[in-house]
Amino acid sequence: MLGEACRETLEGVSTATLTTCLFKRGFRNCFLQNVHPVNPAAGPMVGEAYTLRFIPAREDIDVLDAYRDPDHPQRFAVEHCPPGRVLVIDSRGDARAASAGDILLTRLMVRGVAGIVTDGGFRDTPEIARLPFPAYHQRPSAPTGPILHHAADVQQPIGCGGVAVYPGDVIVGDGEGVVVLPRHLAEEIAEEAAEMTLYEEWVGQQVRGGRALPGLYPASEESRRQFEAWRKARERP
Amino acid sequence: MLGEACRETLEGVSTATLTTCLFKRGFRNCFLQNVHPVNPAAGPMVGEAYTLRFIPAREDIDVLDAYRDPDHPQRFAVEHCPPGRVLVIDSRGDARAASAGDILLTRLMVRGVAGIVTDGGFRDTPEIARLPFPAYHQRPSAPTGPILHHAADVQQPIGCGGVAVYPGDVIVGDGEGVVVLPRHLAEEIAEEAAEMTLYEEWVGQQVRGGRALPGLYPASEESRRQFEAWRKARERP
Amino acid sequence: MLGEACRETLEGVSTATLTTCLFKRGFRNCFLQNVHPVNPAAGPMVGEAYTLRFIPAREDIDVLDAYRDPDHPQRFAVEHCPPGRVLVIDSRGDARAASAGDILLTRLMVRGVAGIVTDGGFRDTPEIARLPFPAYHQRPSAPTGPILHHAADVQQPIGCGGVAVYPGDVIVGDGEGVVVLPRHLAEEIAEEAAEMTLYEEWVGQQVRGGRALPGLYPASEESRRQFEAWRKARERP
Amino acid sequence: MLGEACRETLEGVSTATLTTCLFKRGFRNCFLQNVHPVNPAAGPMVGEAYTLRFIPAREDIDVLDAYRDPDHPQRFAVEHCPPGRVLVIDSRGDARAASAGDILLTRLMVRGVAGIVTDGGFRDTPEIARLPFPAYHQRPSAPTGPILHHAADVQQPIGCGGVAVYPGDVIVGDGEGVVVLPRHLAEEIAEEAAEMTLYEEWVGQQVRGGRALPGLYPASEESRRQFEAWRKARERP
Amino acid sequence: MLGEACRETLEGVSTATLTTCLFKRGFRNCFLQNVHPVNPAAGPMVGEAYTLRFIPAREDIDVLDAYRDPDHPQRFAVEHCPPGRVLVIDSRGDARAASAGDILLTRLMVRGVAGIVTDGGFRDTPEIARLPFPAYHQRPSAPTGPILHHAADVQQPIGCGGVAVYPGDVIVGDGEGVVVLPRHLAEEIAEEAAEMTLYEEWVGQQVRGGRALPGLYPASEESRRQFEAWRKARERP
Amino acid sequence: MLGEACRETLEGVSTATLTTCLFKRGFRNCFLQNVHPVNPAAGPMVGEAYTLRFIPAREDIDVLDAYRDPDHPQRFAVEHCPPGRVLVIDSRGDARAASAGDILLTRLMVRGVAGIVTDGGFRDTPEIARLPFPAYHQRPSAPTGPILHHAADVQQPIGCGGVAVYPGDVIVGDGEGVVVLPRHLAEEIAEEAAEMTLYEEWVGQQVRGGRALPGLYPASEESRRQFEAWRKARERP
Repeated sequence: MLGEACRETLEGVSTATLTTCLFKRGFRNCFLQNVHPVNPAAGPMVGEAYTLRFIPAREDIDVLDAYRDPDHPQRFAVEHCPPGRVLVIDSRGDARAASAGDILLTRLMVRGVAGIVTDGGFRDTPEIARLPFPAYHQRPSAPTGPILHHAADVQQPIGCGGVAVYPGDVIVGDGEGVVVLPRHLAEEIAEEAAEMTLYEEWVGQQVRGGRALPGLYPASEESRRQFEAWRKARERP
Repeated sequence: MLGEACRETLEGVSTATLTTCLFKRGFRNCFLQNVHPVNPAAGPMVGEAYTLRFIPAREDIDVLDAYRDPDHPQRFAVEHCPPGRVLVIDSRGDARAASAGDILLTRLMVRGVAGIVTDGGFRDTPEIARLPFPAYHQRPSAPTGPILHHAADVQQPIGCGGVAVYPGDVIVGDGEGVVVLPRHLAEEIAEEAAEMTLYEEWVGQQVRGGRALPGLYPASEESRRQFEAWRKARERP
Repeated sequence: MLGEACRETLEGVSTATLTTCLFKRGFRNCFLQNVHPVNPAAGPMVGEAYTLRFIPAREDIDVLDAYRDPDHPQRFAVEHCPPGRVLVIDSRGDARAASAGDILLTRLMVRGVAGIVTDGGFRDTPEIARLPFPAYHQRPSAPTGPILHHAADVQQPIGCGGVAVYPGDVIVGDGEGVVVLPRHLAEEIAEEAAEMTLYEEWVGQQVRGGRALPGLYPASEESRRQFEAWRKARERP
Repeated sequence: MLGEACRETLEGVSTATLTTCLFKRGFRNCFLQNVHPVNPAAGPMVGEAYTLRFIPAREDIDVLDAYRDPDHPQRFAVEHCPPGRVLVIDSRGDARAASAGDILLTRLMVRGVAGIVTDGGFRDTPEIARLPFPAYHQRPSAPTGPILHHAADVQQPIGCGGVAVYPGDVIVGDGEGVVVLPRHLAEEIAEEAAEMTLYEEWVGQQVRGGRALPGLYPASEESRRQFEAWRKARERP
Repeated sequence: MLGEACRETLEGVSTATLTTCLFKRGFRNCFLQNVHPVNPAAGPMVGEAYTLRFIPAREDIDVLDAYRDPDHPQRFAVEHCPPGRVLVIDSRGDARAASAGDILLTRLMVRGVAGIVTDGGFRDTPEIARLPFPAYHQRPSAPTGPILHHAADVQQPIGCGGVAVYPGDVIVGDGEGVVVLPRHLAEEIAEEAAEMTLYEEWVGQQVRGGRALPGLYPASEESRRQFEAWRKARERP
Repeated sequence: MLGEACRETLEGVSTATLTTCLFKRGFRNCFLQNVHPVNPAAGPMVGEAYTLRFIPAREDIDVLDAYRDPDHPQRFAVEHCPPGRVLVIDSRGDARAASAGDILLTRLMVRGVAGIVTDGGFRDTPEIARLPFPAYHQRPSAPTGPILHHAADVQQPIGCGGVAVYPGDVIVGDGEGVVVLPRHLAEEIAEEAAEMTLYEEWVGQQVRGGRALPGLYPASEESRRQFEAWRKARERP
């Protein structure tokens, strides 16, 4: 399980910074493309991935009554995704019909789930925009899901927004979008990202004060020393 | 003509709910794709469709002076679309030049038209965002229309956002987008959607109170009874 | 250099009006497609173009340490784009990795640059949305730039949003988007656009008062006379 | 009606050359985008446009039995498009279901129609590839038409491949694709294109013989004289 | 298992005809979009689906050595797909890297597999074009698979070309593309399609002989009688 | 300069094999996307890149007479690209107007240039398909270039088909498409690719003979020994 300290650290860093940490380790494809926050103020979102996979609908199978089956994978996921996790839906990037709507998101929120992500679209987005529950999608999509989507299974490796998502990967969302951290790297990347974030806070102050970027960003040894001094000063009681 | 009661009922339901009612009757393609509200606060929008059709521009025909012709179909539509109707423009999904701008929309608003929809883009969108007149489009588009669009005719069947629109179809818009109801089904669908909306209001209360979805959504007979009790209690004086 | 009077005039007209003036002169492709304001309240933006060109990244060249080179064209541009200019980046319309982030934009702002435009995406967009510095892009993009972009050179003719941009062209941005004025036409177009804007202000009043469009927009001689009277009245002390 | 001489002239020039002649007259958008020959050997194709317009299908209207109506616009067009004309179908660029199949194309061929064009797709393309009847489309598409298309009307102005097509415009197809000539310019453009074609034949000989392009293409006065001499020599008995 | 008679019947009908039979039963989405034959002469292809699912690659997992694992799902599928089946790969419609190449296809052919389908691309397509083994894809794609694809599992329900494919569904490919028949309908649809094919053969003769379409296609009762007479005559010894 | 031995080696390997060699060295993006051979039989193509860059056209600059300027970069490139090189054009992936036509390609062929590549389209493709000169593009495009393209400069780093191309990089084309080799790696990659090609020839024989893939592809030590024996046997006189 993702430790509380790691979760808190990740809530304090941006998805942009995380992509830089991942790039240093050779990961070039970790930010979900075309996936946006419905309600940016609800964030940040941090949690391990619980996955749900959609395939295209078939007219004889995907009817509204299919939702009466308690094992229907979409409804199963909504009731079984553990608290603190992020429900990630592979909608094949197809936002022409809804991946879920406000009632399901409310249920997830009440159950303590950390957030929801789809590379398709949600319906009832005016309501979702007011929920204090982080939700990320491509674009609003009113049409009922079975028009295009069939929920196939849960907790399998999936793709979402063009990125591989394995169950348990750490999902982080902010006002910009969503990044996927391979599970085994989450702690070390959280640490490094927190460091970078603090450095960039100091850089921001320097830049607003008129300082030029060369030697500052990326850091020269001189800048690094100045930063360490600032950091110590600021941590002093 | 669309009755006032039906109009009011439709103003109280969401496009999402309407797509579900239509799906039950075999309609899978009734929500305009890639068409978004410019000014979500101006809605809801309900009215019968008055259609305007664009084809690609031709350089020798589509010049600014063409607008001097009072029979120019775009200008004709703006002056002749009856009050209470929705002007729906087939822009072939091309938002690289404008379908209309704030002056035309203001004129439509003053004339009592119910709203305007295009699958292209509007210009002057910062102004349109402040008009109390529902307007739906793909994305802002400053370039003047004749660069790409030629207004061909009015009141013919068209496509908009990938959906068939026949003159007189009932167009409903909310904060999520726009749905097209075949004219002959509008009343019965309005009734059904209002029923569903009330049931979902009760479901929302239940879910916020911690109840699980199975048996609730979709409704079991037991849930249906509980809902009816709630409904009666609430209607009691 | 762009005169202060011309700059002020251009700050008072819309990109929509400018595209009409350009269309009258045969220019059909001057509005950047799929380029949107990050922070519409920061505008308007007016300045001559200073260009930066990206090509696709190559794994052995485009590493984070490349930013240590003070001649790295992206960093060079940020330090050398003259005050009052607009930095325009040709990102080949690829928003899958960032063209720049909030630290670089802050530096540009502090240096007095007039704004920044890319047909890719910015990272740190929640921060950029709060900067009083006009910034235009396609969509938020957290991934660090070298994943996809290599900064090749500055001050060469480029394409951005499908439009040719020559160094020195006049770039105008408003709440709708960005238009490119060929340098030699900027003054005459600014004049004409200001005239049109005044006329459209009067038209707006007329339309809100209930007047129909034929003879008004486009203007008949009669309307032109009425407008001139209104204009004189309003300029009278 | 298009004269036989003009038709023959147009059969001897390429669509590439015709776009150049049109560009000289200010026409920039006359070549159908994403429209390709199914059977390049069947060409060239020349004829005046007879237009057919599709809009999106609606499930309750667009059923297979709709084809029993002799006034169904697609079937009407197949039986009424006059010999020598080209049937041009506006399929809204949607090739996910068929615009027509081999039986309809065979009927058109037998009736003496000059060819068929759609910006959607044909079905039965292996058979169509063997018909001596010019056919142009986007890509093969097996699904039966009513899944997506509703035939709305004939002989109205349409768009096809992003280009305006008015009934009577002259349609020319070769192994590369399809160009639209405004009716009133067809004769003068045919003449000019034939001239250019002859000049380019001579240029081709010169280039294959090792001559450089400057002064040759475009022509200098000297080259023009050499060409005229070659032309005279070749016309001499 | 698919019976030999049914297989033979399906080899004699076109994917176009099959989509019509499916549409009559309410199936609107059964033809793989953007999937084309590499080697049309190798067909027809008929067999039950054996499925393979790709998700996006991750840089630390998807390296060339991963192919050394005999349980690597792509290699497992190539060795275990039973003879007579069609290997269908869900490549998420991403043809930027290869789904497979000529060596794997040769192995499948030698093992008696009926064909292969991907909605991505194959590499070594010049070689595949010469193999007598039906192969369908989007477009040629030389880059090695692990650049973008990770083989996740086999024999799960997938999407391919936008269509649901369940293991055991009957896959039919011809010179036009690929259609998916729900397993339980394959026999009845094969019968009906064979009937339609024979009728269309007769219609083709009639049309080539000059007969008009009304009453012929779709068939009137009179046409149906004439067809039956022709059929009997032709079956007579 | 690229040595003759290296050129010959590269002519004997496939672009697919080259992408594998590049992937082993960390290069994931070296195959031009959406770029296809016009005349596959003309290949293979090997040569160092000579680059030409297009930006979007501007109506007042990009007129037909611009071609009269001998320094027009497109015409300059055609006359100055050295023999043995490949002319690579950055057309911004825009195939709506032509990058070049048959006369320019003939001139390049006569001058001994090794081939031409664009990520846009060529015109006169029926003629180009018959030229013994390798040409790669996206799709046929009849419209004359200045409608959309302005030739900006030569021998600058560019992007083509989404891949970085530096002047001097080694360009290899076969029946599948085009790959870019960083100049300094060309020789070592050519060697490795030739080795792989020989191994795959032997694998192909084994597979056609019925051998399974595990242990063969990728190679086990045992397979490697068998291959070496075969190789020696075959090299023996």
